[in-house]
Amino acid sequence: MAENGFRISKTPVWKKLKEHAEEMKKPEYHLKHLVQQKGRLANFSLKNVDFFYDFSRQRVTEKTMDLLFELADTADVHRKYRAMAEGQKVNVTENRAALHTAARSFSSQSILMDGKNVMGEIDAVRRQIRAFSEKVHNGTLRGSTGKVFRHIVVIGIGGSYLGTEFVANALFAFADKGMELHFLSNVDSHNFETIKTKIDPESTLCIVISKSFTTVETMANAMQMKAYLSSCGLDAMKHCVTVTSKGSPGDKGEESGIETFHMFDFIGGRFSVTSAVGGVPLSLYLGYDRFDRFLEGAREVDIHTKYAPSPENIPLVSALIGIWNNNFLGYQAQAVIPYASPLSKLAPHIQQLNMESNGKSVTINNYDLDNSSGVIIFGEPGTNAQHSFFQLAHQGHPFPIDFIGVVSPQYPEGRCRPHGVSNHQELWANLISQATALAVGKDAEEKTRFFQGNRPSSTILLNDLSPANVGRLLAYYEAQTVYKAFIWDINPFDQFGVELGKTIANDLRKEIVSRNTNDGHNFKHMDEITRFYLERLFAGKLPE
Amino acid sequence: MAENGFRISKTPVWKKLKEHAEEMKKPEYHLKHLVQQKGRLANFSLKNVDFFYDFSRQRVTEKTMDLLFELADTADVHRKYRAMAEGQKVNVTENRAALHTAARSFSSQSILMDGKNVMGEIDAVRRQIRAFSEKVHNGTLRGSTGKVFRHIVVIGIGGSYLGTEFVANALFAFADKGMELHFLSNVDSHNFETIKTKIDPESTLCIVISKSFTTVETMANAMQMKAYLSSCGLDAMKHCVTVTSKGSPGDKGEESGIETFHMFDFIGGRFSVTSAVGGVPLSLYLGYDRFDRFLEGAREVDIHTKYAPSPENIPLVSALIGIWNNNFLGYQAQAVIPYASPLSKLAPHIQQLNMESNGKSVTINNYDLDNSSGVIIFGEPGTNAQHSFFQLAHQGHPFPIDFIGVVSPQYPEGRCRPHGVSNHQELWANLISQATALAVGKDAEEKTRFFQGNRPSSTILLNDLSPANVGRLLAYYEAQTVYKAFIWDINPFDQFGVELGKTIANDLRKEIVSRNTNDGHNFKHMDEITRFYLERLFAGKLPE
Repeated sequence: MAENGFRISKTPVWKKLKEHAEEMKKPEYHLKHLVQQKGRLANFSLKNVDFFYDFSRQRVTEKTMDLLFELADTADVHRKYRAMAEGQKVNVTENRAALHTAARSFSSQSILMDGKNVMGEIDAVRRQIRAFSEKVHNGTLRGSTGKVFRHIVVIGIGGSYLGTEFVANALFAFADKGMELHFLSNVDSHNFETIKTKIDPESTLCIVISKSFTTVETMANAMQMKAYLSSCGLDAMKHCVTVTSKGSPGDKGEESGIETFHMFDFIGGRFSVTSAVGGVPLSLYLGYDRFDRFLEGAREVDIHTKYAPSPENIPLVSALIGIWNNNFLGYQAQAVIPYASPLSKLAPHIQQLNMESNGKSVTINNYDLDNSSGVIIFGEPGTNAQHSFFQLAHQGHPFPIDFIGVVSPQYPEGRCRPHGVSNHQELWANLISQATALAVGKDAEEKTRFFQGNRPSSTILLNDLSPANVGRLLAYYEAQTVYKAFIWDINPFDQFGVELGKTIANDLRKEIVSRNTNDGHNFKHMDEITRFYLERLFAGKLPE
Repeated sequence: MAENGFRISKTPVWKKLKEHAEEMKKPEYHLKHLVQQKGRLANFSLKNVDFFYDFSRQRVTEKTMDLLFELADTADVHRKYRAMAEGQKVNVTENRAALHTAARSFSSQSILMDGKNVMGEIDAVRRQIRAFSEKVHNGTLRGSTGKVFRHIVVIGIGGSYLGTEFVANALFAFADKGMELHFLSNVDSHNFETIKTKIDPESTLCIVISKSFTTVETMANAMQMKAYLSSCGLDAMKHCVTVTSKGSPGDKGEESGIETFHMFDFIGGRFSVTSAVGGVPLSLYLGYDRFDRFLEGAREVDIHTKYAPSPENIPLVSALIGIWNNNFLGYQAQAVIPYASPLSKLAPHIQQLNMESNGKSVTINNYDLDNSSGVIIFGEPGTNAQHSFFQLAHQGHPFPIDFIGVVSPQYPEGRCRPHGVSNHQELWANLISQATALAVGKDAEEKTRFFQGNRPSSTILLNDLSPANVGRLLAYYEAQTVYKAFIWDINPFDQFGVELGKTIANDLRKEIVSRNTNDGHNFKHMDEITRFYLERLFAGKLPE
């Protein structure tokens, strides 16, 4: 089916959806009417174990969903998903598999890649992480001056820290190992200097995370951190571990520090939270058992994702609605608004996951995409977001929203009831009312008080923010992301779009090195704009 | 000019700009050609004291700029700006002035509102802040058990904390008063519980910030915090100050705590960083003198903004380019990417400032807007953003970017030069190359390595991140925001879009109170969707 020349936008069902979208713009399909249909919630919501997905306030009807399921079939998404989960080299441009789901597989079944079962290596790394984190927690393993480790500095950028940051924030309430976690990602020296003011070097353990061990920012930061530890009279390499590919420069001798944990080229950075990339820091921060339960939650959603038929498949339904909103209703952005402060770093993680995976311009068979793939993802927790940018959502430029609610908070509720309700109840009153207000709107004589409504949203509910539920949430967004890609027929696992900037930066670095080593080197051969910036950098100030 | 019925989209110059935008889509106006024009940078950049604004990589020509200046004249923006700065009631729907610029005025000139000089009150609050912060810093004023204050908890939401958070992060390097700053904004109890684990109650000072002193979240959090302090055996009111309107419930007796600092109804929340809203916490965190220098920087940009003619007026030029990108070239989002970790909270602040101010659907004279006002603002610091969502920027859905560069970092540079360059030089190599790569693109046989280019960006340069320069940056974005509103002819100072959600939440709160006080109260009279959510909240779990 999805062979040479295939473009989803040329299929009959795409055309039918285009026509249907015109139909759906009619006043009778305004959300204020749709939500009043009897059985609306029952018909437009799904539940799998502890994960509830409500799309009753999306601008869809049964016909919409039928067409979207036809679209999914046309794009052959179930076959593609299985191919991914079973170790085929679905990342065709890089000739790699995409086996993040294997990172949380616990079944005795093999997962074969090039005829070799990958589960052996994965299990070995898991056992290594467990043993290592136990040694740190029980004080068997200490810093070079004998102090127990209390500070963890994750040195890594992009996919090497965003997911870990999300999960660590989400599970702060469980972080009872006496560890503080810091993220040294940005090559900007302010990032390093700020962390320096917060750590005690003798009790600091650095985790240097880079698949290739050549990532410029990470290498620069690792070097800076090691120099600092040495300057404090410490044996720096006894304060470092590495997470890297087998055979990388960080996997050998001196550079590997106390221990090396392998990551694999079949798990991409932005999908690597459940591998050693997340496993090492999260196990140190939360304890290995909680990391394990986090994996279990993710695993459960993986199984659902692989086997549930389209109409019951939560990540697939949500991917289809995303595409409906984007390509047919014309929304170019998507907000992620968790009504839960611990999920404050969910949006930055999903931002990378989605925008890097699906911001593509060619199909997997190298045909120009003529439809738009990828949307802008942004978000802040509610109720904060209501007091920030929701004005635009209600009365300005509309954008679809994922609301996320948590039935029970992590901490027991206080007895304060300022307006007769607990803070958690207040939070929920807002969660419920925002989705309603956006959907239903309000007529008013006064134009400033008129609300057009018809603004779509979904609501995800979790019973609580346990490690397993955070794992479910992560796996849900990962699966939604790849299903979108499978529908668009793009490769969500490469990222060539970051290459051009790197190439130009390499050239500029050479210019800077030349000037660093030779005061007489000038930039007159460069284009006028570049020259100006390089001159400012060396002058240390703006022109008078 | 801008009288009844006026709509900017009906003016001849709007039509000319529409036509011109079509012209600009021609291949010869691709940015790769525009940036090579001789004198491009000199002709398409502006500087005012220590603020440099480069728009050479925006998709504009001299003709574009001429038309945009004509648009500014048509919208009569200079008159509107002066009316605002001189105390006229430009916030017509609420019959209020918008005098955030007065908060940083130091001239002896009066600013009259209703015939009364507002500067007296403003000066008095400033003196009060100075005296108060000195008393805290020198230990004259202490907690109820005699401990010096070491923890500041800002209790406020939206405009009551986002700007302070941005500035406090930006100036962390200057925070030498031994104070830690915490933000209790979200009504979610996790926010409170997390802060509880980080503070020492005896040395904690709370700043409760709410203009009306009725903001639901803030009142709930203040009550919770006071109950906690009391439960620790402390006299809670000796650990609290308030920032509120004269005569509000927080301005009286018991509720006001140690001291009340007035805020004024002529300064809106999202524009209030330079008032007592930012002044009290920032003076405690950084010392009053640094807050004062921050005000000075903002003031300098205000003067430039008020008096500079259109072609030299940096905030106006940037507002015009924003509208050009949004209404004429069709970009619906705008990223803010500071190449400076300390500016990591700039984007959330600008997100509120812009999206709440300009996400409107009616003109100031109550005519329906038929053009879109307001864009989605998002962003993370570079280089982090490069490793997160820049794939979409380069090869997917394009969006204009504000890059921000800082010539000299706050900390002296380390001697580490991993690739022959310092970390700060590496940061700049990336800053320069991203803007170039986006603008110029790259041809390639291989489609996955093809970069279309023609992606617009501006670059702002500051000499350093001093308090004054952070003030300049703030005032620049404030002025850009109001200039955009003046061109669209909307009121950027109201926010009726947040009202509907509040009204519905009020109704739901009553339902929750009824159930809290009467177990027999059920939700059968509610619509099916609302009922489901309320039942889940009380059941404490998802349905089986």
